[in-house]
Amino acid sequence: MTQSIAILGASGYTGAELVRLLASHPSFRITALSADRKAGLPIAEVFPFLRHLDLPTLQKIDDIDFSSVDLCFCALPHATTQNVIAALPRDLKIVDLSADFRLRDPAAYQTWYGQPHAQPALQQEAVYGLTEFYRPQIAAARLVAGTGCNAATGQYAITPLIAAGVIDLDRIVIDLKAGVSGAGRSLKENLLHAELSEGTHSYSAGGKHRHLGEFDQEFARAAGRPVHVQFTPHLLPMNRGILATVYLEGDPAAIHAALAARYAPEPFLRVLPFGTLPSTRDIRGSNYVHLGVIGDRIPGRAVVVAVLDNLTKGSSGQAIQNANLMLGVEETAGLLMAPVFP
Amino acid sequence: MTQSIAILGASGYTGAELVRLLASHPSFRITALSADRKAGLPIAEVFPFLRHLDLPTLQKIDDIDFSSVDLCFCALPHATTQNVIAALPRDLKIVDLSADFRLRDPAAYQTWYGQPHAQPALQQEAVYGLTEFYRPQIAAARLVAGTGCNAATGQYAITPLIAAGVIDLDRIVIDLKAGVSGAGRSLKENLLHAELSEGTHSYSAGGKHRHLGEFDQEFARAAGRPVHVQFTPHLLPMNRGILATVYLEGDPAAIHAALAARYAPEPFLRVLPFGTLPSTRDIRGSNYVHLGVIGDRIPGRAVVVAVLDNLTKGSSGQAIQNANLMLGVEETAGLLMAPVFP
Amino acid sequence: MTQSIAILGASGYTGAELVRLLASHPSFRITALSADRKAGLPIAEVFPFLRHLDLPTLQKIDDIDFSSVDLCFCALPHATTQNVIAALPRDLKIVDLSADFRLRDPAAYQTWYGQPHAQPALQQEAVYGLTEFYRPQIAAARLVAGTGCNAATGQYAITPLIAAGVIDLDRIVIDLKAGVSGAGRSLKENLLHAELSEGTHSYSAGGKHRHLGEFDQEFARAAGRPVHVQFTPHLLPMNRGILATVYLEGDPAAIHAALAARYAPEPFLRVLPFGTLPSTRDIRGSNYVHLGVIGDRIPGRAVVVAVLDNLTKGSSGQAIQNANLMLGVEETAGLLMAPVFP
Amino acid sequence: MTQSIAILGASGYTGAELVRLLASHPSFRITALSADRKAGLPIAEVFPFLRHLDLPTLQKIDDIDFSSVDLCFCALPHATTQNVIAALPRDLKIVDLSADFRLRDPAAYQTWYGQPHAQPALQQEAVYGLTEFYRPQIAAARLVAGTGCNAATGQYAITPLIAAGVIDLDRIVIDLKAGVSGAGRSLKENLLHAELSEGTHSYSAGGKHRHLGEFDQEFARAAGRPVHVQFTPHLLPMNRGILATVYLEGDPAAIHAALAARYAPEPFLRVLPFGTLPSTRDIRGSNYVHLGVIGDRIPGRAVVVAVLDNLTKGSSGQAIQNANLMLGVEETAGLLMAPVFP
Repeated sequence: MTQSIAILGASGYTGAELVRLLASHPSFRITALSADRKAGLPIAEVFPFLRHLDLPTLQKIDDIDFSSVDLCFCALPHATTQNVIAALPRDLKIVDLSADFRLRDPAAYQTWYGQPHAQPALQQEAVYGLTEFYRPQIAAARLVAGTGCNAATGQYAITPLIAAGVIDLDRIVIDLKAGVSGAGRSLKENLLHAELSEGTHSYSAGGKHRHLGEFDQEFARAAGRPVHVQFTPHLLPMNRGILATVYLEGDPAAIHAALAARYAPEPFLRVLPFGTLPSTRDIRGSNYVHLGVIGDRIPGRAVVVAVLDNLTKGSSGQAIQNANLMLGVEETAGLLMAPVFP
Repeated sequence: MTQSIAILGASGYTGAELVRLLASHPSFRITALSADRKAGLPIAEVFPFLRHLDLPTLQKIDDIDFSSVDLCFCALPHATTQNVIAALPRDLKIVDLSADFRLRDPAAYQTWYGQPHAQPALQQEAVYGLTEFYRPQIAAARLVAGTGCNAATGQYAITPLIAAGVIDLDRIVIDLKAGVSGAGRSLKENLLHAELSEGTHSYSAGGKHRHLGEFDQEFARAAGRPVHVQFTPHLLPMNRGILATVYLEGDPAAIHAALAARYAPEPFLRVLPFGTLPSTRDIRGSNYVHLGVIGDRIPGRAVVVAVLDNLTKGSSGQAIQNANLMLGVEETAGLLMAPVFP
Repeated sequence: MTQSIAILGASGYTGAELVRLLASHPSFRITALSADRKAGLPIAEVFPFLRHLDLPTLQKIDDIDFSSVDLCFCALPHATTQNVIAALPRDLKIVDLSADFRLRDPAAYQTWYGQPHAQPALQQEAVYGLTEFYRPQIAAARLVAGTGCNAATGQYAITPLIAAGVIDLDRIVIDLKAGVSGAGRSLKENLLHAELSEGTHSYSAGGKHRHLGEFDQEFARAAGRPVHVQFTPHLLPMNRGILATVYLEGDPAAIHAALAARYAPEPFLRVLPFGTLPSTRDIRGSNYVHLGVIGDRIPGRAVVVAVLDNLTKGSSGQAIQNANLMLGVEETAGLLMAPVFP
Repeated sequence: MTQSIAILGASGYTGAELVRLLASHPSFRITALSADRKAGLPIAEVFPFLRHLDLPTLQKIDDIDFSSVDLCFCALPHATTQNVIAALPRDLKIVDLSADFRLRDPAAYQTWYGQPHAQPALQQEAVYGLTEFYRPQIAAARLVAGTGCNAATGQYAITPLIAAGVIDLDRIVIDLKAGVSGAGRSLKENLLHAELSEGTHSYSAGGKHRHLGEFDQEFARAAGRPVHVQFTPHLLPMNRGILATVYLEGDPAAIHAALAARYAPEPFLRVLPFGTLPSTRDIRGSNYVHLGVIGDRIPGRAVVVAVLDNLTKGSSGQAIQNANLMLGVEETAGLLMAPVFP
């Protein structure tokens, strides 16, 4: 049985990644694509790499007939998303890829996003989309909020360790390196090739990055008490991939064991042998996460390194994984392609 | 029905690309992988990006039991390949990715490769593997010789134009730009990141590149008389992709029409609207070829630009497409994944 | 004796490159920097890499006192430049880096830039700034027009060959590969890292690139009759550097000899041994040009490859070389730094 | 007065960088270049980017006449260096760029390098070459040991803070990102463009990197007691540049003040305004170091980010700065060139 899929915001990188992945999905079919400023164009003019696909022409959201749509991916900018979703049919299943519904607490939302949430009821309804930690809730949800790509990477490294009680909760440092596609297709000076190639730099340092709101929310949930991490993201001359180097206090072997046990049944997570650390080249274009653990010469210190592809497992792949759960198909459907290397 | 596949030379880039693509193939299953110097290792130690796959351990070729193998991909170095293949069972179907069987003429082989061919009978038996131009012969073949990746790119741009009689055969210039993965996983100074990033340069210029042997052979076949092209390949700071800029004399509209007509029924070739030229970013990791044609301000001159992914359509994707034909499955099986962008 | 220098348009890449180079100049001192939209800022906020220099604050052009300025570099956008220069003091020496004064013929200007020239008298006064070919005129000039960076590269490869009568003037093809800094610090989608890395593509193909106006003008001057070349520029995932592959008909040895003889006395041009071709990595950040010549297997065909750094010899280094001539100092002053590799 | 300079090991990246920088030095002249395996070749065949320079032909070390050499740079591999230097004239001034003389303690050397030091007397004689912290000793030294490039970056960020007593000595984490040229011109798989582009990864993690020996030595010296830091280096798809993100416990304002005060008189170190963090693009090809400090949302936590060019300030520029001191010329001679951007 084929299910009908709409994508709102198909002219950005996460929208395009949804199209790329859905092109190989066994049972989902794209029946509507929106891109307000590019309405009327074929996708081939916006993303020539999708030229070979038989896809609907880009439309304005208001022109989409949602009556036969089974699920809608919403890949629109932050802040505008909440009102767009509020205007969609109340019974439409939605996977949102924006930041609008990631934080459950209205006060936290206001703190991190600088304004009150416009749709507090929807905010309460939304389920946080980190699949491996919210599987039953996602399967039952109408509205799922995709996670931040940096936030996902850090959580994969840390959440099971909090749950297992094997790390010092007050000494967590996340040093994160991110490829540039996570910043989207936006025209900013620091995203130009001439600026970024040979120009590694940190951004939103000092506790200002909005994904800290997700860390705070989810780590507190796992710990049963507030947990505040230090977090410095860096932009690298690389297109895809996030590598998080997480500095922890705890027994390295216990940390490795906790991750290995937690992720053994997971189809997309791979914990490497103790002492082996992963590279971004090994997950590019795929839905896999590789994690490695190493001890330090200082007893009681460990480093966990996690890598994932920000556009796949960090956003659009995760979104499809969640959609699979919501529509009752195999969770891994359309997501088992191998990474692309080199 | 599942068919059993062996890959010889699984520790190089084309071998790994075969594994990547076959991981999504609906009916082929890898049952043997060879890598003589890495025999005994799991593929995850040689290519961590394939870690998630359930694959046989690497073996020596001599240890493989070919009795139940339906088809063998041979991704071994040039020159050694011919003797390896001669020693394989005589009824084994083989797709070779080396240069050893691309040239049919023993004298041409000696000219371009500097030594006589060691297996002239096999050389005569082999079918040239440019699928769209040898489809029936490939379907009936036991041994298919994969094309050079540069050679494939140039032929897609030019061969139909020779057949259609719309270009001057004595005025063909191919200026080709290639990503570095085409050079393989070999330890050479000019392939180091520190040398190649910011270090564009030509190589094998002046009529010395071995793929000229393929151009000579195939263009003469299409023309019914010798055709000698000028060909300058360049190495670019890029991992995947070939872009060939072909300078031609002829009517641009007729050239575009000839390509469009020839490739209309082809599943993997896309001719862009007249005046639109393609980019390597639009075919990365896929089996698609994009071609564009533009006229010049000088009447009677045209430029054709062709792009493909050297590891996919330029070698391993092409090899699987040929294997599909040889084993009687859908020609596009396992090859319809969309490109990866960005 | 120190000479006082002003730079108009210091917030772009060529403006910044002027500052970089002048920082090591033995007798020029920057006394004014303009950047209209960033007036009032220190240069360190616009270009942190210049943070260590003691430089004047950015000003509006109208606020600059030109009375004690010996020479003004004008690195402003095309089209607006002509009126800005018309408003400068009539006796001020000027080296312009825009395209506004490169074409001497008003009709040619209109053809290539789509509008009539606003300052035809200045257009007649300006001297074309390809130093090695206009040395005495530049030394005597008040207004020098810097060349296009692509145009310079092609001319270094071709002009001496026209003068020497060793090539067929009707069979010249320039296939050019350019790093992205030549496109300036402008916010365009195809200049983003995520689009350009792995995304080689041609642009302004088919005889549309404006530097063809310079080729037409200068090659006709050298030949004494019209010469029309074919020219396809490509954008590469690289920051600095241009590599022009020039396809010619003529005797390769004669071509090499003509270039070697012509450039033997030149301080910045190096002709490599016959058969050796240059790489962009070998001239990065410097004012040097490397040229190589190779024959083809087809008799009477040759390839000349020329490389230079678009921001240095292709624009700002060239501008300083011309300024040196205009102000009577050593032509190479401030320009002998070695390239940066890797 | 011109001083005569020899460079041993001119075929590696640090040797080439010495040549590049010395080409602009006002009073040093290169009179001998060694490269044992390339003896007899002109430098242009090993490093075409140095083609324009008038340099001595490469020699074997044994063939160099040191009698008129004022100072010798030794850019040879680790371990072999110590015996080469022992065989040089006893009164020859030497700046060594290898790791052989960085550690003063024989036991520490054995620990980090896995074998006893072959020249313990020389080991005691050598002065550690971090110029800003050993200036008088370097000026008086015969043998100076250049620092590790990673080690230099970390020390610039941390040593003044230890001296000022403003950080917790038991909670120091250095997360370091390094461009690939620091690994030298060696043929290793992970240095290939196809592996590294898009392939960020850590290396020598878990307290194994040899530069920890330098951190231990120098931080203990500053603190008057042992200090053990955590240190994870990462290899990035970038040619030049190191960015160290240092996580500290202490008052951010006091940390910024301590760095600003310490480096105010230094010609090559720049402390950015509080809250501004540096990028590798801003120091490329130069001898400058940029440092930034930011506080965290967690009180009492700070991040210091330091950037330098591994080949310049991290090795060859540092070496020349030290040589200037040793030969009594201006410390900044030949080193004031601006960075190259973009």
